[in-house]
Parts: sequence; structure tokens; C-alpha cells
Amino acid sequence: MSHTAEIIAVGTELLLGNITNTNARTLSESLSTLGINVFWHTVVGDNPERLREALEIARRRADIILTTGGLGPTYDDLTKQTICETFHQKLVLHPDILEDIRSFYESALHVPMPENNTQQAELPEGCTVFDNPVGTAPGCAFEADGVHVLMFPGPPHEMETMLRRCGEPYLRKLSKEVIVSRDIMTFGMGESSVDELLHETMSKMTNPTLATYAKPSEVRLRATAKAATEEEANAMLIPVWEMVCKTLGNVVYGVDVSGLAEVCYAQLLRRGLTLATAESCTGGMAAERMTAIPGASKVYRGGVVSYWTSVKAEVLGVPQEILDAYGAVSEETARAMAEGVCRVTGADVGVSVTGVAGPDPDERGVPVGIVYIGLATPEGTFCRKMDSGRRRRDRIQGLAANHAFDVVRRWLTGLPVETI
Amino acid sequence: MSHTAEIIAVGTELLLGNITNTNARTLSESLSTLGINVFWHTVVGDNPERLREALEIARRRADIILTTGGLGPTYDDLTKQTICETFHQKLVLHPDILEDIRSFYESALHVPMPENNTQQAELPEGCTVFDNPVGTAPGCAFEADGVHVLMFPGPPHEMETMLRRCGEPYLRKLSKEVIVSRDIMTFGMGESSVDELLHETMSKMTNPTLATYAKPSEVRLRATAKAATEEEANAMLIPVWEMVCKTLGNVVYGVDVSGLAEVCYAQLLRRGLTLATAESCTGGMAAERMTAIPGASKVYRGGVVSYWTSVKAEVLGVPQEILDAYGAVSEETARAMAEGVCRVTGADVGVSVTGVAGPDPDERGVPVGIVYIGLATPEGTFCRKMDSGRRRRDRIQGLAANHAFDVVRRWLTGLPVETI
Repeated sequence: MSHTAEIIAVGTELLLGNITNTNARTLSESLSTLGINVFWHTVVGDNPERLREALEIARRRADIILTTGGLGPTYDDLTKQTICETFHQKLVLHPDILEDIRSFYESALHVPMPENNTQQAELPEGCTVFDNPVGTAPGCAFEADGVHVLMFPGPPHEMETMLRRCGEPYLRKLSKEVIVSRDIMTFGMGESSVDELLHETMSKMTNPTLATYAKPSEVRLRATAKAATEEEANAMLIPVWEMVCKTLGNVVYGVDVSGLAEVCYAQLLRRGLTLATAESCTGGMAAERMTAIPGASKVYRGGVVSYWTSVKAEVLGVPQEILDAYGAVSEETARAMAEGVCRVTGADVGVSVTGVAGPDPDERGVPVGIVYIGLATPEGTFCRKMDSGRRRRDRIQGLAANHAFDVVRRWLTGLPVETI
Repeated sequence: MSHTAEIIAVGTELLLGNITNTNARTLSESLSTLGINVFWHTVVGDNPERLREALEIARRRADIILTTGGLGPTYDDLTKQTICETFHQKLVLHPDILEDIRSFYESALHVPMPENNTQQAELPEGCTVFDNPVGTAPGCAFEADGVHVLMFPGPPHEMETMLRRCGEPYLRKLSKEVIVSRDIMTFGMGESSVDELLHETMSKMTNPTLATYAKPSEVRLRATAKAATEEEANAMLIPVWEMVCKTLGNVVYGVDVSGLAEVCYAQLLRRGLTLATAESCTGGMAAERMTAIPGASKVYRGGVVSYWTSVKAEVLGVPQEILDAYGAVSEETARAMAEGVCRVTGADVGVSVTGVAGPDPDERGVPVGIVYIGLATPEGTFCRKMDSGRRRRDRIQGLAANHAFDVVRRWLTGLPVETI
């Protein structure tokens, strides 16, 4: 039997336009992967009457209701109370959860728990508790009158963590079959080109299925298989993976990885090499992505953010003649930056980024969107020129950081690095 | 008389989680500044029955309905037809619009107009046409049975362009009052503590209002006033600002700013000082936040990501004796890093971050969550010790970067920096 879910986001800040309802997308993507239909999203403010109305409407249209938000410690967080009234559930204090919250404050945050956090430990009697390892508000799920109600906190990283750890397992039990998904990651090809190459095949697929999701400058392909067992589903996904690699080639860089930096980390670790970064227009973004990986210090020595030209010369030792002759944004400077950061940090591999993120062209008139990626390796120094065109500053920076890691991963896997 | 609007987004791709409903946020933000209440967002797929249901529900709750999406040329673009049926409007072909679309294809896209684009030129009889300078689908607005219906295309840049050019002028004619909001930014006090201090006052306020929004490690207070004129509304917000500053004190760091880095940027610019960063556990996050600001190069020289201890010694010149005696995560090292980065970059002010982001304690057993912030200034060197406790790695890094900028902004504004 196939289920129908409805998503209700609670939060006045959504109705005021202060934040975007990204939770609805995260939940919808997960539900469609689980083979659960979603026909409605609703957003209401921190208002019990309207939330009750939304719940009454939703219970008539769906047999699964997912809510986000309104589980916080403040007085306008009324989701639990309103849901319990609507579905005639008793809200009871869970002493063990209260202890968790109290100890999260005392041992983790080293402050006493504010008393109004007590209400976060109140949950519907007999519900399935969704614990919150990254925050204080727990979520939960219960069934009443044939409707499953799942409550998640509003902060997206808390909601997503809880969805993966507790929500998806709970939902998977409701649908009889096993659903397995794999995210095939690509960099260097636009969504429309990927779509052109794969559309005909994708449109013919029913199980497994294949769908594209575009992130800025990356395209993620989600392959999903339904089967009786996980092994069976996994086996069904292998030919999909092979077909995608055959069709798209080297733009495919990994499966179920967070991004290019993670792939570089794994390759460097395997090869016993260390990396350093020298950044101008990305201003530390590449370093930050590398050090976001737990255990990054095994392969990443450090880097220099040479934002001023003087820092390129004095800290990285880029020869003044090169800076004078070619300018700070040039292939020659990119190469010298990469070699320089290897020299000063002792890393085996150095990657550099110098370009114009805007809003204005550089003093020599290099236009916005031009970025040079330098790569210094034991086998020699390379350079890739990227022209992103006149995009928004943060888009250009993000794209340039991606190119930097793409250059590193292509060199580590024996592919040409200068072009994609 | 104050109006109530409801936003209905049409598009199956929203329900599948392929895209996020950013249009709802753009519309909500615009409506709230126009003083129009928004109590509901709804998303439905490309399905006439469910769109009709959404419209029937909305017309009972609101006197302004805004729709996005479903105006395209393909067979599943049924918004106009469904709305016209629901509100008993006649859909008629507008020859002048058909000409616009045809010439958009021929002159801009250099291809003949596909015949199925003809239906894009069909609009409700006697409606106000919203022309679309950046796409082919025009929007429109009409009034029926006391309800104003506004239709916008789905692609965000087309929707937003049309909203500014046609939608907002149309809505401004309907609403009498202006709403002005100010975001009061705080750092260093948790949401529950802020709430405890302000709840009683906030709950008594009706106009202006005050609401708290928590971001990781920051609390934003939004003060909103409704009045006949913008000047009047602005004047009403001054006492709110004064009350919040009086109640919360120095944790308040600015109004309508994106974050602590932006406040530091403005202060440094005003004082004619330059900044450099030396980061260990934040791995470039502070540098990245600084360089996210357009024009950052006016005050930010650059930085060093001294992830390995050897980089602290060789690039930043932290004395080996200090590293041996106190370890990489210590007050002494933090101070030497800040002084070192000023020396190598020539910056007036240097801020450093060294700590343990986890998952594991450092080799000397310093626990996860301990971070030292060093600050080197012409007036001497300072240090703040932060103990965030065992949070998630990225939260510790984000919090540490915030502390770094908080130390800088407190020094720049003559406040003590060692403690909050």
C-alpha cells in the first residue's frame, strides 16, 4: 500500500520571508526516495489556531504528516501542544530526555539548563522519540486514527540529522519494500548537458530510477532502487553506476561523498601525500572545505590566504618580477603561488587560486570571473584557467574552490588537469 | 483596512524536492514590508484538482492570492486555466502579447516561436497585464468577488523582476500602511537567556513588535513597526533599540548587518586599520567570512592557515620553545600566532584561533571545544579562552570564528576583549 505524506512547516519567520523553507525540500526529496507521495506543502506561523486548521486539513488528505519547527524552548514554540490537542494525545514529561537536555547543557555547554528548556522534555505519551544529537529539542513520531505524525525541529541541520538517524528508519518501516539510493557526484558539466545525455534513458527507467539535482556548479545524480532486500537493491544500482560513468566520463568524481574535497582527502591519504593551499580570491574557502573534514590534519598541512599582493610576495615568495610583469591574476602568479606554498609548508602538493571574484575587475582590467588555478606537484606544476563569466561574487568563489579541488583530484587520479 | 495575502506555489518539482520554494520567501518579504499579512504558504503540484482545492481554501482565508508557476507553454502548465475556472473569468487571447512573445523568440532567441507558446498570450479578460522582460510567460492580476489574484511565473529571476516592476506597484495601491523592520544582532547570549530577559516586554508589545530568531551561536532580534509613513515607523523603532541595548548590553553588536565580520570591516575601514588572520582549528573560516564582504581588500591583508604545528613555527614564526612548553593549543601560542601574522603580513591588527574542534582531543589531551583567540594590536596582545563544550565539529569551528570577530569588534569599540 502506498502512502501519502503532507509537510507542514511552522514558523512566523517563514511567513515574514526571513528564511526559506529548505526543510520542505529536504523532506520531499527523502520521501520521494522512499516511494511516499507528497501532494502538499503548507507553511503556518507560530499560531495554534492556524496550525490546528492545517492539521485538520492535512489529516483528511494524507496518512503521514511531517512537521518542522516550533519545538524550541521559547513561549511561541507550540507545535507539540497543538498537535497533541488535535490528535488527542497526552503530553508527558520524559525524565530521561530532561536528563539528556540538562547534561547537554552542563557537560557539553558548561552552563546550567535554563528552566524553560524543561518543556522540551515533554512528548506525547508512548511516542517514538527522535533524539537530537546536535541540539536540545527532541523530535518524535506517533500514530493516531491511522495517521502517522512526525515532528522535527526547525533548524535545518538539526532537522536533517534527525531525519537521517530517526525519521527515515521510521518511514522505511511503513513501506514494505527496501529502498536504496546512491548519490553519483559530478563536476564540470551543466545540468542541461547532463540532462540531454541522460534524459532518454532516465525517462524509460522505472526501478531503479535516476534523477538529477543541480547544486551550484555541481550536478548530483540520485539512483534509487526498490527491492525486497538491501542486497538486491544494491545489485540493481551497479549497472546504473556503470551506465552513468560510461555516458558522462571523467566528470563523475564519486558516489555518496560530500564533495570534491572529501575525494581529494581520501586519495591523498591513500597515496600518503600532504596538501597545502594558497588562496587569493577564494579567501580561505578551499582551506575551510578541507579542514571541515574530520581528521583533515592527516593530509592537510595548512595554507596562506594571500589577499594582498604584498602577502603573495612576502609570505609565499612569489617573485616581484612575476607580479610586475604578469600581475597578481595570471597563470605565472598562480604557478608561483602553488610552488611557494609547498616551499613554506613542506607539503607534497600545493594548489593555488588567484582570480577576480568581483564586484570590480582587477587594477589591470582582468574581468570578473577569470580565475587561475595553480597546481604544484612532485611531477611538475600545472595551471587551469577558469572563466565563470559575470556571476555573483559568492558563486564565483564557490566555483573557483570546486575547480581547485577538481584539479587536485584529477592529478591524483592520473587525469589531465588543465581542462575538464 | 489591512489585507491578508496567501501564497500558492504550483510545481511538481517542488513536491519532489528537486527545487526549493525561494519564490515564497521573496514574495513574503515584499508583502511584509508592504504591511500585508501573510498567514499561509501552500505548494501544490501541476494538478488542476489540487490547485482548485488550494484556491478554494485560500479565497476563504485571504483577500489577496499570489500564485507562482504553471504559466509555461507546456501541457502541464494549467494555472491560468484553473484560476479562471475557479474565479469565473474568461481567458482571452491578447494579440499584442502574442506579438511580444513572437518577437522575443525571433529577436532575442533567434528562433521562430513554437506554436504552443500561443497559449501564453491568453489572459483573463480585463486583467492587469504583468509583462515579462526576462522571459516569455506574462503574469497578470485581477479582482473577483473581493479577492485580488496575482499570477507570477515560476523561474525565480522572472518572478522577482515581475514582482518589482508590476507586482509591488499593484499591491502598494491596495495597502494603506508601511511596515519597517530592523534586525538587532547579538552574540554571546543563548536564545533562551535572551528570551528570559525580554519575554515579558516582548509579549506586551503589539506595534512595534519584537521577535527573536536564533542562528547557530547568534541571536537576531527583529523589531517591526507599522505606521502611515516610513519616517513614523522608523521613529517608533528607536525606543525598541534603546530598550534592547539597555537590557542585553554589550552582546548587541549591530543593526541590519550580516554578521560580526561586517561590523569589524566597517570599524576597521573607519579607523584606517588593516587586519590579518592566523587560524588553526577554524581552518580558514574567519578568512573566508572576511573575504565574503565585497571590497574586503580595503582592510583585510590576508592570513595563514597554520594547521600543522610546523606551519605555526615556520610560516608564523611561533617560537619552538613556546610550542614545546605550552603546546599548539594554548594562550601563549595564540598570542604568538596573532603577533606572528601581523609581522609577516604587515597588518595593524592580527587575530588568531587555535583550539580543538574534534572529533578527538589534541595530543596533549586538551579536550574538544577548548579554543584560544589571540589578538595582536598596536596597544598590546590579548587572549580569550572559549569553552564551547563537545559540540559538532562545524559548530565549534563556526562559534570560534564568531568569537574571533567578537574579540576584534570589542577591541575596536573599546570594550574588554578577554571575556564576554
